[in-house]
Amino acid sequence: MKTMIRNGIVVPMNRNMDVWPDGYVVFEGTKILEAGPVDGLDVAIIRYGGENGTGSDFQVIDARRAIVMPGMVNTHCHLGMIPFRGLGDDCKDRLRVFLLPMEEQAMDCELAVASSRYAVAELLLGGVTTVLDMYYFEDQVARVMDEMGIRGIAGETVMEEATCDAESPQEAIDRGEAMIRAYRDHPRIKGCLAPHGTTTCSPDTLRRVHDVDRFYNVPFTLHVAEMDYEMIQLRDSFGLTPVEYLQELGVLDENTVSAHSIRLTDEDIRILKEAGASIAHCIASNTKAAKGVAPVRAMHRAGVNVGLGTDGPASGNTLDLFSQMRFCANFHKNELRDRSAFPAAEIVRMATWEGAAALGLEAVTGSLEPGKEADIVLVETDSPNMFPVYDPYAALVYSAGAANVRDVYVAGKCLVRDKRLTGADFGRIREELARKMERTAFRDMKNLLC
Amino acid sequence: MKTMIRNGIVVPMNRNMDVWPDGYVVFEGTKILEAGPVDGLDVAIIRYGGENGTGSDFQVIDARRAIVMPGMVNTHCHLGMIPFRGLGDDCKDRLRVFLLPMEEQAMDCELAVASSRYAVAELLLGGVTTVLDMYYFEDQVARVMDEMGIRGIAGETVMEEATCDAESPQEAIDRGEAMIRAYRDHPRIKGCLAPHGTTTCSPDTLRRVHDVDRFYNVPFTLHVAEMDYEMIQLRDSFGLTPVEYLQELGVLDENTVSAHSIRLTDEDIRILKEAGASIAHCIASNTKAAKGVAPVRAMHRAGVNVGLGTDGPASGNTLDLFSQMRFCANFHKNELRDRSAFPAAEIVRMATWEGAAALGLEAVTGSLEPGKEADIVLVETDSPNMFPVYDPYAALVYSAGAANVRDVYVAGKCLVRDKRLTGADFGRIREELARKMERTAFRDMKNLLC
Ligand SMILES: [Zn+2]
Ligand SMILES: [Zn+2]
Repeated sequence: MKTMIRNGIVVPMNRNMDVWPDGYVVFEGTKILEAGPVDGLDVAIIRYGGENGTGSDFQVIDARRAIVMPGMVNTHCHLGMIPFRGLGDDCKDRLRVFLLPMEEQAMDCELAVASSRYAVAELLLGGVTTVLDMYYFEDQVARVMDEMGIRGIAGETVMEEATCDAESPQEAIDRGEAMIRAYRDHPRIKGCLAPHGTTTCSPDTLRRVHDVDRFYNVPFTLHVAEMDYEMIQLRDSFGLTPVEYLQELGVLDENTVSAHSIRLTDEDIRILKEAGASIAHCIASNTKAAKGVAPVRAMHRAGVNVGLGTDGPASGNTLDLFSQMRFCANFHKNELRDRSAFPAAEIVRMATWEGAAALGLEAVTGSLEPGKEADIVLVETDSPNMFPVYDPYAALVYSAGAANVRDVYVAGKCLVRDKRLTGADFGRIREELARKMERTAFRDMKNLLC
Repeated sequence: MKTMIRNGIVVPMNRNMDVWPDGYVVFEGTKILEAGPVDGLDVAIIRYGGENGTGSDFQVIDARRAIVMPGMVNTHCHLGMIPFRGLGDDCKDRLRVFLLPMEEQAMDCELAVASSRYAVAELLLGGVTTVLDMYYFEDQVARVMDEMGIRGIAGETVMEEATCDAESPQEAIDRGEAMIRAYRDHPRIKGCLAPHGTTTCSPDTLRRVHDVDRFYNVPFTLHVAEMDYEMIQLRDSFGLTPVEYLQELGVLDENTVSAHSIRLTDEDIRILKEAGASIAHCIASNTKAAKGVAPVRAMHRAGVNVGLGTDGPASGNTLDLFSQMRFCANFHKNELRDRSAFPAAEIVRMATWEGAAALGLEAVTGSLEPGKEADIVLVETDSPNMFPVYDPYAALVYSAGAANVRDVYVAGKCLVRDKRLTGADFGRIREELARKMERTAFRDMKNLLC
């Protein structure tokens, strides 16, 4: 079956940064066959749809007034943490007061799975078609991603201390490696090992994790240059910045997805570029936690690839990239005192193409081009916030929200139609998560203010 | 008819900052009779609803799982500027390249009216029940506000130069004064004169406008301490900051709504406090334009009242206060490097109570308390972004968006039910605006990038 999406404003996010009003996209199976402007429409209809486009093997989706864009790529998330959303948001030391104790007391495989299913539903409904996750019980999270139809990389977290799913880093590494192998030939899902951070893993653990990720050619992702204690500890112990430290360990390369990376020196940026590493920029999470604004302009100027990430729902609250895009524009413009900095098109590129490149998926997703997977999002412009549209990029960055996402395709399969999941019942997913939470200490966390 | 809203999480925004899970609000006609926690529910049902609450004069609205809050107050907007939304957003000098020329060429009364109707619909659908507008043709804008049922203050802009609706400042003053008089006894609508800014009006004009606003006891609102050229011009001409300049002119008092007010000295803040003036803080607009972050913590510490404003759709793009609240939290926390600064409850207070106080409406709206007008918003928590809810303030600030607004009451009248306008057809309002735009130079502004 060939499907043509037509009649929308197509922003393919290709190298030309074309914009095609009334453009079209055609895909078959999981792959895009062609995308183009209205001039080519009639020829494309005949080519793919037979005489007058009435071939039985051909369907047309009317994108009436929608913006048609590549599915967005969330490069840093913790899907298992929906139960933590809104818990002690404004508390000074919430990591130690709420997050770590609750993770120890209440997090288990069932809860992580129910949360991940909810989070994937939220991602899809918000137009995210690819996600890099980093949490626990990731063999089960990978299964949830597979069931839900999203494109995903399941990162098993490795920490020096015991976690809710592993007594030792070696246990996490072994479990994660088994998962990587299990998904090696999967068309949409990959596994990887994700060391927690630069100071929460020993040098030896970081190297061992890197060896495994390198061997299987999957992302090596961790929290870098994010926390005060991290900066201080590495400076005091080694006289190094986190990036310098990772370089010295020999773990930086083109598979690295360095999350947050707020406090970078020019030399750090040079090292990251040299290594071919990418950044997962989580602006809403970073600024809500008062950690500052990562130097993305300097990264871009140095040629470092920067994707966007929501961080987990505990930190960034919502899992859509529209809020990240708008935050990204406003924070960087304001930081640079330049309203023309980070124009909307550049921001949308970060949410799509650069995100895909960060995850090593630049040949797979992140733009609407022949041969890529059909990961496609339709954003309606009928809602009050979406009129008028002079520049679709501006509408996506400054006006749109998750609630404007109309249809979502991943690998050619329609997973969201008219703002609803096609293959799952969101109400049930939520009830299931609520039920699991009721059995844990999350039950008692009501109306907490600090 | 008495109406009881029950079964939601009520955040009345009263002095105690109570939170009432399963609380209730009762109103009759335009006024709130009572609001309280679940303990008082049975007594309230009998008191207002007769035996078992079955009185024919009594209806119950089930707020199942919704957050019930006071209608939000948008303290600075330009309703007539919907046609400008998304036009040249990232251009360096867009004011002079796009906004002023298009205002001169294309803006007329019909377009301003169609735009205002659209903007009011967008405000209501996003949970804003009170707006201070500042644009042109405001006698007609006041009429639109009245028809649509919102609570509003229509501010006729006064500028030294000729504008699209007045050849001279005196003409604008005369027209505005007539409007103020016409709406003097209106229960929801007021008029006022709004001088454009500190440097775009002569000292004499500023004083004459102030005299009129003072005489009728209506807000005196203008753009203050926002622009580079403004700061420089007043310093070079008078050696004064904008606030000092206004004080010297004798136009600052408790009716002042000082919009933006980004670049304030400590002395400016002291002057504003002394005068009893309020601020309309427009964080999304200010940061998108790379103008910086107003010193709101210092204002709050000095006791200055700060409401939130969206600014016009040309500058702030969306007209809901949810995005403003989230921007406000993240920008101020990050600016102060303190994640506990501006806790969510304080932000919601700015969007409601402080906004009402800024407009001189603290006895009328901004909280759910007996004797106030029944301006009430229900925010559903069924959508993916709204679960779980530990702290309703955090859910409102960090998670919610305009699309979560379920029902909206202004002066006891239900204007939005289940996310739709009850008294107007949004599709028609939009078509009407699009048709008016087609007749003007806005027609040719397609896919403009700069
Ligand atoms: Zn993280
Ligand atoms: Zn303004």
